[in-house]
Amino acid sequence: MTVTEAIEARRSIKHYDPKHVMPEADLARLIELTKLAPSSFNMQNYRLVVVRDPELRKQLRAVAWDQAQVTDASVLFIMCADLSAHRADPAKYWSHAPQEVQDILGPAILPFYDGKDQLIRDEGIRSSALAGMTLMLAAKDLGYDSCPMVGFDAEAVAKLIRLPDDHALSFMIAVGKQTQDAWPRGERLPDSEVVIHDRFGS
Amino acid sequence: MTVTEAIEARRSIKHYDPKHVMPEADLARLIELTKLAPSSFNMQNYRLVVVRDPELRKQLRAVAWDQAQVTDASVLFIMCADLSAHRADPAKYWSHAPQEVQDILGPAILPFYDGKDQLIRDEGIRSSALAGMTLMLAAKDLGYDSCPMVGFDAEAVAKLIRLPDDHALSFMIAVGKQTQDAWPRGERLPDSEVVIHDRFGS
Repeated sequence: MTVTEAIEARRSIKHYDPKHVMPEADLARLIELTKLAPSSFNMQNYRLVVVRDPELRKQLRAVAWDQAQVTDASVLFIMCADLSAHRADPAKYWSHAPQEVQDILGPAILPFYDGKDQLIRDEGIRSSALAGMTLMLAAKDLGYDSCPMVGFDAEAVAKLIRLPDDHALSFMIAVGKQTQDAWPRGERLPDSEVVIHDRFGS
Repeated sequence: MTVTEAIEARRSIKHYDPKHVMPEADLARLIELTKLAPSSFNMQNYRLVVVRDPELRKQLRAVAWDQAQVTDASVLFIMCADLSAHRADPAKYWSHAPQEVQDILGPAILPFYDGKDQLIRDEGIRSSALAGMTLMLAAKDLGYDSCPMVGFDAEAVAKLIRLPDDHALSFMIAVGKQTQDAWPRGERLPDSEVVIHDRFGS
């Protein structure tokens, strides 16, 4: 499936075949492709919680507006971010890069983020979304549908998955085999409301 | 280009042909595809600032670590978000949906966000990144390369593009015709550091 076809065909699907089990090879491929999403300084600060335990899925559904896709999709991904990723030894992210690149980027990471809590959180949310969008389009290419979700009690979900204090919870993505079509695609806002040329208000 | 090929071939490219002008039809197609990215409640809260004015590009480069792609790429997108999008009349986002969908989703938007500043900001950053990743993969399919960027003085950029107070600045994406390959892809962290099964610490 071409990129263009996948972007056009992807819809947020709410109803899945609860009996479908995603083969391990598909899950591994999906994760491999997701990990090619870009992240600032190549920090790879996104974290993918792959929820397959049926009991946990039931508990999550109870704190996610009882949405069927939480239990019925083949896999539920909970997209998180490690807010301490910029504190790791930069060599971890750049050991394959030319020395001159390592010399520039390595020492820049910590001062760029340190003490800037909002920037650190933004970076976590941003990376998780770049990875999540990659995951949803890759899923489409592999024959799956998906549904990104923010409709849940974030505190309750964090508790259920034992989210560490230095991690952020971003959103969920249900991935599975569709049993019902999506409702018609929501209207797109006109370019005049979404696209700004050069500067706002000009 | 298939989704899988685009995800694997996409790299953050820093050097572009400064003489290349993106045809209007390509820009329109890129925007059209970007607007198919999902957003919570279909709010479409992302805003794309399309910067082509050469003088403004020079000023932006001066506050973006003098990175060449800011002036040399065919188009510079500044990905922003409207933090007031949830306050608009929901009919704007759902007028094409079945009445039962409108009845459920319309009244849910405002109470979900109102007064929750961090959630509103997270949603803006998340939507801008979902749209931005869609844009970067669509660009690859249309024969362009791209570079997502956070290395800039956010306050200075906000001033240059006259960012309204109720908008957030998320990141930049340079899109153009590559003149130099990227350096080798940064090492990927092992699944053991990025993928969590069911719960953290188990």
